[in-house]
Formats: sequence, C-alpha cells, structure tokens
Amino acid sequence: MAPFADATAVCRTAPGFFEAEIKPGWDILGNANGGYLIATAGRAMAATAQRPDPVSMTAHYLSPGRAGPVGLETTLVKAGSRFSSVSATMSSTKPVVAALGTFGELGRSGSGDDEARLVDGRPPELPEPEACLPLDRGDEQPSFMKQVEMRLHPDDAGFAFGKPSGSARMRGWFRLRDAEPIDTIALLCAVDAFPPTIFNANLPVGWAPTVELTAHIRARPEPGWLACAFTSRFVTGGFLEADGELWDSTGELVAQSRQLALVPREAPTDG
Amino acid sequence: MAPFADATAVCRTAPGFFEAEIKPGWDILGNANGGYLIATAGRAMAATAQRPDPVSMTAHYLSPGRAGPVGLETTLVKAGSRFSSVSATMSSTKPVVAALGTFGELGRSGSGDDEARLVDGRPPELPEPEACLPLDRGDEQPSFMKQVEMRLHPDDAGFAFGKPSGSARMRGWFRLRDAEPIDTIALLCAVDAFPPTIFNANLPVGWAPTVELTAHIRARPEPGWLACAFTSRFVTGGFLEADGELWDSTGELVAQSRQLALVPREAPTDG
Repeated sequence: MAPFADATAVCRTAPGFFEAEIKPGWDILGNANGGYLIATAGRAMAATAQRPDPVSMTAHYLSPGRAGPVGLETTLVKAGSRFSSVSATMSSTKPVVAALGTFGELGRSGSGDDEARLVDGRPPELPEPEACLPLDRGDEQPSFMKQVEMRLHPDDAGFAFGKPSGSARMRGWFRLRDAEPIDTIALLCAVDAFPPTIFNANLPVGWAPTVELTAHIRARPEPGWLACAFTSRFVTGGFLEADGELWDSTGELVAQSRQLALVPREAPTDG
Repeated sequence: MAPFADATAVCRTAPGFFEAEIKPGWDILGNANGGYLIATAGRAMAATAQRPDPVSMTAHYLSPGRAGPVGLETTLVKAGSRFSSVSATMSSTKPVVAALGTFGELGRSGSGDDEARLVDGRPPELPEPEACLPLDRGDEQPSFMKQVEMRLHPDDAGFAFGKPSGSARMRGWFRLRDAEPIDTIALLCAVDAFPPTIFNANLPVGWAPTVELTAHIRARPEPGWLACAFTSRFVTGGFLEADGELWDSTGELVAQSRQLALVPREAPTDG
C-alpha cells in the first residue's frame, strides 16, 4: 500500500511527455491541493532529470486543478554533473501549473559530515501526536485532509472552532497514510498540506489562492512524523507570504518553503 | 543617465525572442552578478507578459554569465486578467539562467488601503549611509560593487578586514548610481547585490554558487535608499539558504528573497 505514490504516479508517453491523473478526493472544495499537484509534477520532472530528489522546486499556479487526467510536458534545461534542471507544465483543458526545478541526489538527514554547519532554528515544540488535533475527522473537513495524516498543535487549532489564535501560524505533525515512507517528492506535498496560517490571524481573509510556491529540499527524511511550522509575517498590498520549515524525527531540517498568495478582495463562498 | 536600465536593456528580435548584452564590469571575478542577470531576464519577461512588475520571480543558475551577447527565449505560459506568467531561458554558448515569473501591476509602497495588513518585522537598524562602509572603493573590490551604490553596516563589514562578525548576516543600504530610480526590475538586482552572508560566519566557506533565487516583489519603492538585511540560518548537507528583506525609504517592505547556494567542497581560488 502506497497511496501517495499511487496518487502522484506519472506515465511517460513520449520523451518529455507524461500522463497523470488528478485523483478525486485530493481537493479542497473541488480544487486539488497545491502541494499534491507539484508532487505529481515533481515525479515527471525527476524522471526527465534522471535524478531522484528535488533540491529546489518552484511552482506557479495558473488555474485550479480538477480531478481528471492531466498531461505533463517537461524540458531538460540543463544536465550537469551533479544537478539537472527541468521545467514543466501541467495542463488539462488549460494550463494548471508551471514549474521549474533543480534535481540531484540528496543525502539522508544527518548523514553528512558537514565541515560547514549552521543551524539557527529548531523544530517547533509540539505535544505528542496523540495530544494534537487530527485533521482527518468530521464530514466538514476538506477531502484532502483525509489523504494524509496531520495533527495540529492544540494552540493553533482554535480557528476550527471560530477562535483563531491571533498568530498567523500553523504547527503540527505530518506523515503519509499506511506507514508509506516520506520521500523527497512527498515533502513537496507536505509543505502545502496544512491549513493556511492566515486562518489563525484576526484578519478578514479566507482561503488565499497561491500564486507561487518554492520548496528547498535539504535532505531525505528519516522515518517517522515530520514536525512542521508555518508562519506568515507580511500581509501587505493584497499579498501574503507563508514560510514553512519541516523537521524529521531526528530533529534535522529536511525542507524549507515559502509561498506567495493573494489576499482575496472578497471573502470566498463555499459554493 | 540611467546606467542600470542601459545595462539591463533587451531588444526584441522576434515574438518571444530577445537579444541583450552582459556588460563588462557587472561581474564578480569574471562571473556576472546573479541579480543583474535576472533583472535582464526580467525585462524580457515583463515585455512578453505585457505587465511591468515581477510579482514572483525564480531563477535557476545553469552556468556562469560572461560578458558578451546573450539571447533570451521567453514563453507566455498564461495571460490572466490580473497576472501573466512567463518562463525564460538566457543563453550564450550554453544556457546561463532558467527563469519562471508571474508579472502584474503593483502599487506604490504604502499606497494600498489594506483591509488586511500584518507586518511582523521592520527595517534593519542602520547608521546613516554616511556612517556605513561604501563597497565601491578600492581596486580589490569586485567590479560589480562599482556599478551600484551600497553602504554596509559597520558591524557587518568586519569580513573585509579578516574579522567576520560571527553572524551570517549582511545589512546595508542600496541605491542605483546617478539617482536612477529603483523600479521593480532593479529590485531583482538588489536582492543579490550584497556580499554573501556567509562571509560573516566563522565557517570554512568562500563564494557559494547560487543554485536558485526567488524574489517576491511586494510594492514599487519610493525614491531613496533601500534598507536591506540578509541572513542565513541553515548551512547543512552542503547547501545554504540566504533570506533577504528590502525596505524602502518610507519603511515599507518592498521585496523578500531567498536563495539556495552550494557550499563549495573546496575553497575556491581567486584565479
């Protein structure tokens, strides 16, 4: 059982061309989760790069991804001795995602004998997963929340009960279902899996559509839960950023992310 | 006199195709500054987008840019009602930069009547420009440092005298020469103009080649010096990130940046 690998599988149909399917149920109110989309794009790009790990991956979101077949067109921009760079477009009836990434072969977390090492940060302090709030329960949860396992810090869960914490922050645990290992492609999903930070700010902002997301993958995670923290520091001029840090079970930083989202001019309806 | 606009000028030769020149003197030890390169790419991309301002811009560096003619091939990935997304490749004898950006029309800094506003940060505390260290003096400075005006915080200038501060941080003022206004394309240069943060860390790392840089441009800056701060928090597994914040003379955040760079396996030589 590898539900995430299944949901993000791609099939090469010609050099640089792939078919995939946006699976039903990986959506938020009908729109596929953005991290799920770039993980799927990442599979095609890694195949074209002939290197397994996204080192840096950027996606620009062009239109909502709906369940159904999609095509992926990839271009090998450069094949180097250690890294290869690939651009990609995912399209259905119209373009959904444009991506640009550099791929390589990353070490396991903590495996490096780093001569140069600086870590000015640490994993978020989280209660044990059992003491955090699961996001996959209740019929009112968006479908995507049932595809992966997340546990939210109780201090950041108030938004779900109409009591946002007042801090534009989301912290919690992430793992895949059925004990599926988290590879570096799955990290591309994890960086965009949690509810928006902005839900915990006392601001008149609902779902904020992402313009662009960049993830730096720093290492292959060791098995176990990822400890994740997302924060927004700047909501200005109709845009907001959200910064993420993902730490594996050994306490190593495995990914950093930043996204730029639009502050909707009017509150979206659920319909 | 608009030396920066001149140095980043592009000439359209066919739909989507542009010619430009990497000018002599915009280099660090023979390699063109990365921000200068993406500013030049940004001009071509903005022309293809038919929108003036890069909202989010990502560049992957493929090979060093040398002085001389380059070609730019751009593709309009999506033209939307508010934003247009464009991919681009800059090439000379081989590909130099691959870029992906979303362009729109940004407001002047502070012009928005933001219903939703959050600013969890502030400009770096800098002595007046006259009390900071100019980077354009002395024959030993890289050529690029003479093309724009920068003044470094005295506390961050120790690296230049063999006394790094011990904090992986660079703070200082930036402006263009000859009172040329800083447009949003020039911000793409400013985010990569300062000496590497890592020069101030007590780590065995010299020039760290950039793999990828992403800039979010948040507003058109008001005239005057930009107050800039760059910090690296994570040097692990052979990679480092550097985060930048640029604030204009009215105290508004105008750009955020993050880059991923390689920690060289051996100290580079100057030759």
